[in-house]
Formats: sequence, C-alpha cells, structure tokens
Amino acid sequence: MSTARRGPGRRPGAVDTRGEILTAARRVFAEKGFDKATVRGIAKEAGVDPALVHHYFDTKEGIFAAAMRLPVTPEVMVPTLLDGPREEIGERLVRMLLRVTAAPETREPMVALLRSAMTNEQAQAMFREFITNALLYQVADRLEVPYLRIEAAFAQMFGMIMARYVLKLEPMASADPEELVELLGPTIQRYFTG
Amino acid sequence: MSTARRGPGRRPGAVDTRGEILTAARRVFAEKGFDKATVRGIAKEAGVDPALVHHYFDTKEGIFAAAMRLPVTPEVMVPTLLDGPREEIGERLVRMLLRVTAAPETREPMVALLRSAMTNEQAQAMFREFITNALLYQVADRLEVPYLRIEAAFAQMFGMIMARYVLKLEPMASADPEELVELLGPTIQRYFTG
Repeated sequence: MSTARRGPGRRPGAVDTRGEILTAARRVFAEKGFDKATVRGIAKEAGVDPALVHHYFDTKEGIFAAAMRLPVTPEVMVPTLLDGPREEIGERLVRMLLRVTAAPETREPMVALLRSAMTNEQAQAMFREFITNALLYQVADRLEVPYLRIEAAFAQMFGMIMARYVLKLEPMASADPEELVELLGPTIQRYFTG
Repeated sequence: MSTARRGPGRRPGAVDTRGEILTAARRVFAEKGFDKATVRGIAKEAGVDPALVHHYFDTKEGIFAAAMRLPVTPEVMVPTLLDGPREEIGERLVRMLLRVTAAPETREPMVALLRSAMTNEQAQAMFREFITNALLYQVADRLEVPYLRIEAAFAQMFGMIMARYVLKLEPMASADPEELVELLGPTIQRYFTG
C-alpha cells in the first residue's frame, strides 16, 4: 500500500484505467456505502491490482472525492439551473434532478454520496463542505436568495430522492417524473422566489 | 445466543429492565446505525447480560422494532396532527416534528431509524412498512389526500431533519424553530390541502 508508484511515472495513456476505476468505485460505494467499501473491493470490481488504485487516488477518501465530483458537478448544474426564466427555476431544478437520477449509472454515485454522508463522519464533513460551498451557497449568492431557503429546497429534493430511490415508498417510487415536477416544482419555486 | 430462556419464565416485574434495555438500544442504534449495533453492545450499555436482552427481544431486529415504535407512535402523532383547523395542518406538523426532534432523547431514535433505513436492507423494509402503513397512508386516508402528496410532505420533513441534525448544514442546523415553521409550513399545507 505504498505511494512509491506516484510521481513522474504517471503516463497520459493511463487515463482510461483511471476512469474504469472510478466507475467501479461508484458501483461499490453505492452498494456498500463508504465504510464497507474497500480499495481491494474497488480494485477487484475494476479488474485491476489494488496498487494501481492506490497509485491513482492514494486513499479510499481520495477515490470517493473523485467519484463524488461526478455526474453533477456544480460547474454544469449551476448554469443549467440559472439558464432560463426565473419563474420556472423550481420546475427546472426538479426536472433536472429527476433526469440525472433516472439512470442507475448517474444515480448510484449521488445515492452513495448521500448514504455515506448519513453514516460516516468523514464523508459527512466532505459532503457538507461540497454541497454548501460548491453548490448551495453559490446558487444562493447568484440569485440573492437567503441560504436557509436554498437549504429548504435542498431538503425537499434530498428527501424526494431518498423516498423514491432508497426507501422506495409507493407511489413516489413509480411516479411519472412530470407528475413530480408538477407537485414539487412550486415548492422549490417558492423557496427561490418567495 | 440461545432462546431457551424465553417462555413461561417471563415475570411481570421485569418491565423496568425491558425499558432500560430499550433506552440503551436507542442510544446505541443512534450512534452506530443498525448494522454496527450489537446485542452485546446494547447489553453492555444497559448494564445487563446479553442473554437477558435476547430473552426480551429475541433478535437485534426485535430490539430495533421495539425501539422504533417510540417516541412518535402513530397513535399519538395522527390525532395531534388532525386535531385542529385543517388550514393549519402544515404549521402544526412542522412544529410538532421540530418539538419531537429538539431533545436528543427523542431525536436519537428517529435519526437512528432513518439512518438504518438508508443503509440496511432489512431496516429499510421495516421502515418502509412502518412509515407507509402505520403513518402516511393512515393520515392520507383520514384526510382524503392522495398518497403521493403525503409522501412529498414526508420527503420535505425527512430532508429537513437530515439537513438540520445529521448533515448539520448551516444556517438550517441553528435556525429558530419558528423560522422553519414559517418557511416549511406552507409547503406541507399545500401538499395536504392542494
């Protein structure tokens, strides 16, 4: 588990392996949460040697941080949210989140992140820092909305994702996305524009 | 770990011990979640022999189920929610939940339950069954509100509890309860009365 392989030996051609490790890591984190996932397990899932995983990401925390930046980087999410009429921002946010979470490949890393933040102190601090500084406060500052209102909107969407995809409460779990846009959109809109 | 001690040997005078085990179990589940909590750890916390814990509750699942019925039994929550003007039901629900979750003694078992439901399949099924059949559908039926709307309200409150007490997002974590009643009350009200 040494880090001796890091450094100038890194080759540009190794980028695909890095991507494959991240894909495997997302699957493993989604399935096991942060605590029970292991570098060894992720390496096995990716079909590579554990030393290679350590080479790219150093620690399990490192892999998690890299995996958590995808697929909803604030750089993509914030402009999409702000691009369009302000009176439709609620609808737009709900629709965007439902689209991102519809496919297991994009949903799994988000759910893994939320799950880990629920149960692991380190992941919790990581998530809190990420979600507030990189996302919620940025949106709030751009739109001049109080932080508490943005967090109320976050709470609604967080709860919806958990109820729909993790707890699988019916009829929420099978509801048509547009029905949820209609139901939750006005809630988010009110938090954003009062 | 045998169950040989169960049966006619149970004495009515042992009720207090049972209560003490449940109190200890709530603390242990809140701290460790479902997976990592052990009968041995709960027994240690309660200062009793593990065999006694098995005697009363048989399994860890049994202890969890008993602990989860408190402190928000549907028998107490549903009438409180329904008792009063229907146009204030949103406010009433938010205020009630903030009151129940204000004190660590009553918050911990709820948070333990939500956390376990996030990460443990067995706890998830238990929680889903409990929250829908014993609580949400009952309220929905009494008020003739579609299940999806009740679950949207649940998602908002669930997300708020997680953001405030587990993720500890600021300013949500330190917000005055009445500020949250004002902010979230109308959301819940809309889900309940359209």
